[in-house]
Amino acid sequence: MAARQPLITLLTDFGLDDTYVGQMKGVIAGICPGAMVIDLAHAVRPQQVEQGAFLLETAIGAFPAGSIHLAVVDPGVGTERAALVIQAQDRYLVGPDNGLLSCALPTECRPPSPARVVLPDRMRAVRLPIPRDRPVSATFHGRDVFAVAAAHLAAGASLDSLGERAGDMFALPPFAGNRRSPDLITGRVVHIDRFGNLITTVLAEQLHSRPRAVTIAGKRVDTIVTTYAEGAGLVALTGSSGYLEVAEVNGNAAARLGASIGDAVAVEC
Amino acid sequence: MAARQPLITLLTDFGLDDTYVGQMKGVIAGICPGAMVIDLAHAVRPQQVEQGAFLLETAIGAFPAGSIHLAVVDPGVGTERAALVIQAQDRYLVGPDNGLLSCALPTECRPPSPARVVLPDRMRAVRLPIPRDRPVSATFHGRDVFAVAAAHLAAGASLDSLGERAGDMFALPPFAGNRRSPDLITGRVVHIDRFGNLITTVLAEQLHSRPRAVTIAGKRVDTIVTTYAEGAGLVALTGSSGYLEVAEVNGNAAARLGASIGDAVAVEC
Amino acid sequence: MAARQPLITLLTDFGLDDTYVGQMKGVIAGICPGAMVIDLAHAVRPQQVEQGAFLLETAIGAFPAGSIHLAVVDPGVGTERAALVIQAQDRYLVGPDNGLLSCALPTECRPPSPARVVLPDRMRAVRLPIPRDRPVSATFHGRDVFAVAAAHLAAGASLDSLGERAGDMFALPPFAGNRRSPDLITGRVVHIDRFGNLITTVLAEQLHSRPRAVTIAGKRVDTIVTTYAEGAGLVALTGSSGYLEVAEVNGNAAARLGASIGDAVAVEC
Repeated sequence: MAARQPLITLLTDFGLDDTYVGQMKGVIAGICPGAMVIDLAHAVRPQQVEQGAFLLETAIGAFPAGSIHLAVVDPGVGTERAALVIQAQDRYLVGPDNGLLSCALPTECRPPSPARVVLPDRMRAVRLPIPRDRPVSATFHGRDVFAVAAAHLAAGASLDSLGERAGDMFALPPFAGNRRSPDLITGRVVHIDRFGNLITTVLAEQLHSRPRAVTIAGKRVDTIVTTYAEGAGLVALTGSSGYLEVAEVNGNAAARLGASIGDAVAVEC
Repeated sequence: MAARQPLITLLTDFGLDDTYVGQMKGVIAGICPGAMVIDLAHAVRPQQVEQGAFLLETAIGAFPAGSIHLAVVDPGVGTERAALVIQAQDRYLVGPDNGLLSCALPTECRPPSPARVVLPDRMRAVRLPIPRDRPVSATFHGRDVFAVAAAHLAAGASLDSLGERAGDMFALPPFAGNRRSPDLITGRVVHIDRFGNLITTVLAEQLHSRPRAVTIAGKRVDTIVTTYAEGAGLVALTGSSGYLEVAEVNGNAAARLGASIGDAVAVEC
Repeated sequence: MAARQPLITLLTDFGLDDTYVGQMKGVIAGICPGAMVIDLAHAVRPQQVEQGAFLLETAIGAFPAGSIHLAVVDPGVGTERAALVIQAQDRYLVGPDNGLLSCALPTECRPPSPARVVLPDRMRAVRLPIPRDRPVSATFHGRDVFAVAAAHLAAGASLDSLGERAGDMFALPPFAGNRRSPDLITGRVVHIDRFGNLITTVLAEQLHSRPRAVTIAGKRVDTIVTTYAEGAGLVALTGSSGYLEVAEVNGNAAARLGASIGDAVAVEC
C-alpha cells in the first residue's frame, strides 16, 4: 500500500440489525488499526449474489486507487467454495468465489452465462486458506477469513503471502441488455433502491437514442425523462450508474407496479 | 481548516440500502483522505426537505467548531436550483438551495413562510458550478457536486475558490409553534423517531410552564412528564432538542395514534 | 490508552432513522478527535436490555485490547439508575447500570437470576455523575453522559477521574440453557438476525454431542447441520457465537414459525 491511509470498503447481505458488520470492523481494527473502513451496502437481499455483484460493480468507481473492496454474499459459506483475493488494475477485491467479484474481470473476459473463466495474465489472484481447526459452524468467514485477509492487505501484506495462486474464478456475464431486434432490447430488474426506483440491466449506452418505451411488470412506460424532477407518474431515465431505471415521480415505482428483482424488462428503441 | 482532523457530517434521504452514501464517502476519501465522515441520518423521508432541515438543525450543535455539514434532500436535482456552500459562524453547510440549510441563518433572518431571503453581512456563501459535460441524468449531485465541494473544503480550499458569491438563499421559517391565544399554541409533527415518538414544532421554551394538554391526531394527552420512565400510556414531554414530543411509555405513539408527519398539534398551556 | 488510535464501539436501541447516534459521535469527536468509532448495532428492540446484553457479549471478543464499549439500552433514563464505567480485563464498558453490561463480569460472578452483585476485587468500576443543571427531559444521557465519559477515557482520562467508585452492579445470569434432565435442555430465543435465524440461549458446548431435535414455537426441528448450505427447510446448527440457532435454508425461520424473541426452546440431546 502507498503511504496514504489504507481504505477498505464493505458490502454484505448481513444487514445492520446484528453485530456481524461491527465484528468484521473489530477484526480489521485489531490487525490494521490505521485502516479506514467505508460501508458500501449491507442490505443486499439475503444470498442474492447477482444483486451484490451489481452494487459492487457500480460503486467501486467512486473510490481511489489502492482501495480494498471486501464483499460477502455467500450462500455457500462452509462448503468447498473458495475464498479469493484478486488484484485488478489498481484495486483489490476480497470475497467468495461465487461470481460476486465478477467486476474484477475486464468485460471481454466475462462469460456469456455464469461459468468459471480463466484469469487473464494481467490479473493476479490467490485462494485464501479456510481454517479447519474448529467446527465449520463456529466459523464466521466474513470475520475470520475475509476481514482478516483484507486487513493484512491493508497492513501491507503481499498478495502471495495470503494464499495460493488461483488461475480461474467463477464469473457472471456483464450487466447489459440483450438485443432481440434492431428496436428491442430485453433485460431484467437487478436492484430496487430506497426510492422504489427499478434499476435494470439495460445500459443506456446500448441505445442509440432515447428509448421510446420501457415495459416492466406488464406496464408500458413511455414518458422518458432526463431528471426525476421532469414529468409525472411513471417515467424511465438513465440513472447515475448508466443503467436504465423506471421511477415514479414523487412516488415508489416498485410498490406502484408490484415489481420485484428479477422481473423482465423490454425496451423499445 | 485548523490542524485537527477535518470532520464532515452527512444527512440525506438516500437510505442505507444502496451504495449512494458509500460512493459519496469514496469521493471524499479520494480528495481528502484524512477527513473523518460521520453519518447524521440517511432515513429522511424521500424528498421531505422540511424533515431534513429539522434533523440537521437539531443535530449540528453536538459537533465541534469547524465541522462541515453536507446535506442532500433534493427533489429538484437536475433542475436549475442552485447548489450552496455556506459559512455560518464556525461551521460550513453544503447542500441544495431549497430550504434544507435554513439553520445556517440566524433565527431573526428566517422568513415567516418559505421564501428567498437576503443573507446577512456576516454570512458568506457561494453557488457551486453544476457540471454540464455529461447528461444530467448521469450526474449524481450528492456524489459529483456536493461531496466534491465538502471534501475540497475539508482539504483546505477557500470558500471563494469553490464558486461564485451568493447573496440570497431559499429558507424555511424557524421551527416553532404559533401562539393562537394566551393559552393555545399550535404546531405540527415534524419527525417521528424510531421509538414512534412524535416530535412537534412546538418549543418547550414557548410555554411559560408545563402544558396542560397536547391534542394530536384527535387524541388529547394530558399526562405531562419529564422522563419516559414516568407515567404510563400516552405522555407529553420535552425532548432532548427542546421540542415537545408525544410518546407512549413502553410503546409506539405513532402507531397507537395513527399519526403522520405533518399532523396538526394543539398545546393548551 | 496505549499509543494506538483509541477505539470506541457503540451499541444502542436508537436505530439509524434519527440523528441520535450521529450526535453521540459528534460529542466524541469534539472531546477525542482521534478516536475511531465503530457501530456494533443500533437495532436492539426498543428497551430490550437482555437482547442488547447478548449482542454486546457475543461481539466484543472481535475487538482489540483497550477497546471502549459504549452501550445504551436504557428504559430507566432520567430515573435514579446509575451510569457506569467498568474496567474489565483489558477493555472498558460504559452504559447504564441495568444489566446491559453484565458481560463485564466473569461467568462465575453472574447471578442465577437478575440481581445486584458485588464486583470481584479484580474489576474496577465508577458511577458517572448525572448533570442536574438543566431539566432531566432535556438531557440525552447517551450523548451528554455516556458518550462524554467514553470520549474522556479514549482521550486518556483515568477511570477514577470520571466518577465515584462503585462496589456493585445489576447483572443478568449467564446466557445458557437450563438442563432439565440428562437429555433435555431448555432456553429461549434471545435474538433474531437479519436472515430470520432464531438465536437461542442454549450453548452448543452444553451438549455432549449433536442434539437430536430442537422444538421451538410448537415445531420440532430434527435436521441438524453444520452449515447453512446443508439440508433444506428448517435446520438447527451452532452459530458463530457458539449458540444454537434455528434457521430455514434459503428462507426465514422467524417468519416461517411466527417466532419471537423470548419464545421457549427445548433441545433434546
